[in-house]
Amino acid sequence: MDPKEFCIRGKQMVDYIVDYRESLDKHRKVFPEVKPGYLRPLLPDAAPEEAESFEDVMSDMERVIMPGASCPAATELEIVMLDWLGKALQLPVEFLSGSGGGGGGVIQRTASDATLMSMLSARHKTLTKLGREQPNQVDGKHLSKLVAYMSDQAHSSVERAAIIEAVRVRKLPSDEKFSMRGVELEKAIKQDKENGLIPFYLCATLGTTSSCAFDNILELGPICQREGIWMHIDAAYAGSAFICPEFRPLLNGVEVRIGQVDKLLLEHHSWNFADSFDFNAHKWMGATFDCSPMWVKSRKDIVNSLKVEPPYLKHIHSESDIITDYRHWQISLGRKFSSLKLWFVLRLFGIKKMQELILSDVAMAREFEEFVRKDERFEVTNEVKLGLVCFALKGSNELNRHLLEAVNREGKIHITPTELRSKYTLRFVICWGNTRESVRFAWEYISSKATALLSSPSE
Amino acid sequence: MDPKEFCIRGKQMVDYIVDYRESLDKHRKVFPEVKPGYLRPLLPDAAPEEAESFEDVMSDMERVIMPGASCPAATELEIVMLDWLGKALQLPVEFLSGSGGGGGGVIQRTASDATLMSMLSARHKTLTKLGREQPNQVDGKHLSKLVAYMSDQAHSSVERAAIIEAVRVRKLPSDEKFSMRGVELEKAIKQDKENGLIPFYLCATLGTTSSCAFDNILELGPICQREGIWMHIDAAYAGSAFICPEFRPLLNGVEVRIGQVDKLLLEHHSWNFADSFDFNAHKWMGATFDCSPMWVKSRKDIVNSLKVEPPYLKHIHSESDIITDYRHWQISLGRKFSSLKLWFVLRLFGIKKMQELILSDVAMAREFEEFVRKDERFEVTNEVKLGLVCFALKGSNELNRHLLEAVNREGKIHITPTELRSKYTLRFVICWGNTRESVRFAWEYISSKATALLSSPSE
Repeated sequence: MDPKEFCIRGKQMVDYIVDYRESLDKHRKVFPEVKPGYLRPLLPDAAPEEAESFEDVMSDMERVIMPGASCPAATELEIVMLDWLGKALQLPVEFLSGSGGGGGGVIQRTASDATLMSMLSARHKTLTKLGREQPNQVDGKHLSKLVAYMSDQAHSSVERAAIIEAVRVRKLPSDEKFSMRGVELEKAIKQDKENGLIPFYLCATLGTTSSCAFDNILELGPICQREGIWMHIDAAYAGSAFICPEFRPLLNGVEVRIGQVDKLLLEHHSWNFADSFDFNAHKWMGATFDCSPMWVKSRKDIVNSLKVEPPYLKHIHSESDIITDYRHWQISLGRKFSSLKLWFVLRLFGIKKMQELILSDVAMAREFEEFVRKDERFEVTNEVKLGLVCFALKGSNELNRHLLEAVNREGKIHITPTELRSKYTLRFVICWGNTRESVRFAWEYISSKATALLSSPSE
Repeated sequence: MDPKEFCIRGKQMVDYIVDYRESLDKHRKVFPEVKPGYLRPLLPDAAPEEAESFEDVMSDMERVIMPGASCPAATELEIVMLDWLGKALQLPVEFLSGSGGGGGGVIQRTASDATLMSMLSARHKTLTKLGREQPNQVDGKHLSKLVAYMSDQAHSSVERAAIIEAVRVRKLPSDEKFSMRGVELEKAIKQDKENGLIPFYLCATLGTTSSCAFDNILELGPICQREGIWMHIDAAYAGSAFICPEFRPLLNGVEVRIGQVDKLLLEHHSWNFADSFDFNAHKWMGATFDCSPMWVKSRKDIVNSLKVEPPYLKHIHSESDIITDYRHWQISLGRKFSSLKLWFVLRLFGIKKMQELILSDVAMAREFEEFVRKDERFEVTNEVKLGLVCFALKGSNELNRHLLEAVNREGKIHITPTELRSKYTLRFVICWGNTRESVRFAWEYISSKATALLSSPSE
């Protein structure tokens, strides 16, 4: 949507809000007459390939949403949007609510929330299995033996979730490409079990924060399945890219060329090892913060881990095989109508346009990577798979720290650092709105700062 | 703001967004030049008494917010808004960041998040005190002995927080007014300590969900202080009302008439027993969901409980005595610019107008209460202090269940039920936008349904 159209549509929305408020007394009921499940039949089975018009979406607001007001429309639209999105990302069918297999999606606020909830579900499931121990009976003998796994590249939210939930967490060393591998997991499990511990959860990252590395879930998945370990996939950043068939194989943790690995393996194995999956639609899919879609294979596991039912929240449509009651799926009780974000984004862009945008962003990252590679003073320090290029001047950490300061000083561009195997590294990331011109400008700016820095007497 | 003005201002905001986006390349820097602490001197020390104009607030957007972009403006505005709000509620000075005493405020998403964070802080503080045990070393001997307290009327989020954090929680029976009292706490502590448990946390509720009851923090506070128990105050609903001097004494857990209790006791004792306090500004203060301001007396306690610092988040202004880094204060890493909600609401209404709105809402609730009391078929089942009236037909739970169904059936009004000492009860609550006419209409509607119900052959 260009600025001109945003201006028109934004003002239409203001009028819509005013009209809605003014018609409340006259035309709206305080509680809808629809029956649970009313919404799904009113919508197509999948997100549109081509962009739809704003008028069409708004006319569906009256047709689809308004009869269900906020409840049950908010819940039912969320269920359907998560199925749309799950199909667009080619998630295994077990994750889709419409499949009837006991799985489903929910919009968490952030990937941290999803990590917390998945670990909680895993903890509950494991403790229950180990003797019907209630999660709240902490004097039980099992809780203190639980151990969760993450890679040394995983997001800090995994460690934080473990702190909150009072379980051990063990960081596994990643390989030279910053990928968590099966051999390290096997080693840790063996050692921990020998010490009487109980492995119960693994957070695999697809697209790590530091370097956009991919854990090898083709190796990790079967081990988790064998050991009864809950595998959560945190694809906070990279998840959006799986909407492109070109990047879908990344989701298997290894770069696969067509024909190299059996298609059946890709479709039916690696993915299906995951018990839960999450990504941030607010990162690279055009939804505003916050909007973090999460899927679970067994909704019972997530619901049972946090189900408390006070009398003031009793109603006739409690969470069941038929009814979804999202308050049991999350930390907070209150919820927003976040599925509207996905509804607008998926329909106003359409799948094809979203694929184009992501492909174009990745192409720009590759272009930046080329700039770096052609300059002998620099090195690329990650394997560029999506929109993140990690790079550094050949030389000391101190030198690169000075480069970062010089680049950020004037506020023309801003890049953030990280450490990769204690190598201080600069991170260049393509976001929505970047252009080839802005990427070229950024590289030339960085390059000129490097020239100035390297020719200064103090270096 | 009436619909006409909303229409004008809303469209101005759309233009503002477009102008901002279009000026990005030309006029805006990607990183601000301001120094930490720049914002506070640009604003008054307290929220305005009288309403300010939209133009004034918007011109301050350019003067105050834009030079600090989103960072550090979002953080610094939040600090100042929480001080404004804390003063408006007459919170003890120790809670205010500007007091320099180590306390401060943060906007959580919901009261559930605040409960979770306060319990986590308490757990960390207690475990640390008991022998420098790290929260993540769950094989330690202390965690399994911790016990949290809540009343049988407290919100389900307390129980959920305890589940997540793997600590015991004990529900104390409330008195005949649904208030948690000191005597029950004393009894529980004594018993638990005899059993080798370690009391560490109490969640006191001001304005319970079921019946808007107030726990007696004048009694509970000194006990918590003596025992080293963290007292969190959950005033999710009632908190907004404390902006009115008329309701401020409720905050002490007992209705106090001037002169009845020493003023010094009110000002300096009961409140100061609390370690943390939270209310939902999105419930009764005009902020949109979600916006749940929380204050802590010791920011170190909350920050230390969840501090994990990965290399990609290192920056020169880390959380310290001078710098606030809110990611350590909450579950998620990402944050919204929620303080803008408070900034607009507090300035566009002004304190006086907010007080008037709340007083008017409470007056309407009292009027509804009178309607109920004058009708001999009914009884009022709670002590009406703010906007919630609990009531029921004299008779069986079954009868009242039928009444609720009849009232809600046509979608003209909607009321929710609860159980008070296993008495099925209807809850009538005044919200923003109610009028005396709508309240009278609601009562007459309920009354007519009762008449129909009581005269039907089946009853």
